Amino acid sequence: MHRFTIRVRYGDTDQMGFAYYGNYLRWFEIGRAEMMRSLGTTYRSIEERGIRLPVLEASVRYLKPARYDDEVVIATGVEQLARASVRFGYRVLRGGDEELLAFGATEHCYMGAGDRPVRPPDDLLALLRAAPVAAR
Amino acid sequence: MHRFTIRVRYGDTDQMGFAYYGNYLRWFEIGRAEMMRSLGTTYRSIEERGIRLPVLEASVRYLKPARYDDEVVIATGVEQLARASVRFGYRVLRGGDEELLAFGATEHCYMGAGDRPVRPPDDLLALLRAAPVAAR
Amino acid sequence: MHRFTIRVRYGDTDQMGFAYYGNYLRWFEIGRAEMMRSLGTTYRSIEERGIRLPVLEASVRYLKPARYDDEVVIATGVEQLARASVRFGYRVLRGGDEELLAFGATEHCYMGAGDRPVRPPDDLLALLRAAPVAAR
Amino acid sequence: MHRFTIRVRYGDTDQMGFAYYGNYLRWFEIGRAEMMRSLGTTYRSIEERGIRLPVLEASVRYLKPARYDDEVVIATGVEQLARASVRFGYRVLRGGDEELLAFGATEHCYMGAGDRPVRPPDDLLALLRAAPVAAR
Repeated sequence: MHRFTIRVRYGDTDQMGFAYYGNYLRWFEIGRAEMMRSLGTTYRSIEERGIRLPVLEASVRYLKPARYDDEVVIATGVEQLARASVRFGYRVLRGGDEELLAFGATEHCYMGAGDRPVRPPDDLLALLRAAPVAAR
Repeated sequence: MHRFTIRVRYGDTDQMGFAYYGNYLRWFEIGRAEMMRSLGTTYRSIEERGIRLPVLEASVRYLKPARYDDEVVIATGVEQLARASVRFGYRVLRGGDEELLAFGATEHCYMGAGDRPVRPPDDLLALLRAAPVAAR
Repeated sequence: MHRFTIRVRYGDTDQMGFAYYGNYLRWFEIGRAEMMRSLGTTYRSIEERGIRLPVLEASVRYLKPARYDDEVVIATGVEQLARASVRFGYRVLRGGDEELLAFGATEHCYMGAGDRPVRPPDDLLALLRAAPVAAR
Repeated sequence: MHRFTIRVRYGDTDQMGFAYYGNYLRWFEIGRAEMMRSLGTTYRSIEERGIRLPVLEASVRYLKPARYDDEVVIATGVEQLARASVRFGYRVLRGGDEELLAFGATEHCYMGAGDRPVRPPDDLLALLRAAPVAAR
């Protein structure tokens, strides 16, 4: 899976001293954006061609907390590539000891102008087919 | 289900013009906090007794976008009450026409001092048993 | 000044146990949006007429922390209304004892289509002239 | 000044298509944390010694918007080092063309156990004296 490292910031923590659970969806966004960049495109350039990938579904399983100033690795891959949707899988690891902190998935469809579903362009599909596979 | 109304703020939107998908987990937090308040306790007072309910799992299904300045109703109930965990269910409705925008769930365990699992106190269990049931 | 009450949520706190300092700018946004609503318009409807009020400057003075589950009153008024800009003033009070927690200001210009400065429409100016005055 | 590069994420944008104004305070937090790391300490280790640097005041001047997927350089330095407080200065530059997008400052005091002001330890003061000076 594609790996990208971020750091837990003070604003990410809550009074438990852990990264707030809602932040993981932001981390997943970072993971898939950086995976696409590593494949040679950007989500920005996809949007500029008039195609958006809104999220249909998101899920996170939290195993261990991430703490302030921890480095966290977001490992991202494609879990399933269907005709009208793509499902990304994510693993969140603590930097250093590679302890698995959380995992999850997001499912997306393809939308064009006027918020209507569109067939994804062939080059985007080819790129997603070439993406790392998400380990379950 | 217990209902609580919030409003989509500018800072909640993204450049698609919709509420960012990560915000829904924050809305779920608001929903369960306000449901507990309506039952006669607060999550703050539970924490002050040394018990926390960290999130084990969260999931959201996004149906329609919420837009800037929309009123949004967060309907919250208990989906499942097990010996060592509780699962809350949520429905996010657009204010006014009650269109279902999203639904989801969070599962929590009970943690005591030193981050160790604890049996929840009887009064907390009684309160959760008296909570509205989450419609699936 | 116009008053609007919000509550500090878990996701707003940091590991100090206080509301994170960046959240106050969001609270200021809520304050000015609700002040405009109380005057009979909405920021959404202003944007729909093609006018935006981007922030030129923001400042916050933090006196006492806001804590989880505290009710917080955002008092908002107009501090200065110039030809090409408007300055809102804010006071953040703890609900109940009305302790002053923070105060601040934001300055905005008027932008039209193509990100160009525009003269604000007369009805918007009239409305801002009728707004509560921010106490310094 | 110490430089650290971040990227504007989708969740940072608002429906204007720009990074939301409240995010800049988070960026300033990242800037000062990374400047301290570059000087050989971490804010985490300072907190672990029982000293916190709560924010007394923050201000931002917004010149040009930051957009989705832009790289943004946060340049951080010490603006003023007084007996009981320290003031950091920040400049936010667009990556690549180094266009100045925003600048600002935060002022902090030193707090010890029981939320009481303390004299900062000598090694922390020595480190802040050795920090880059914020260009005005």
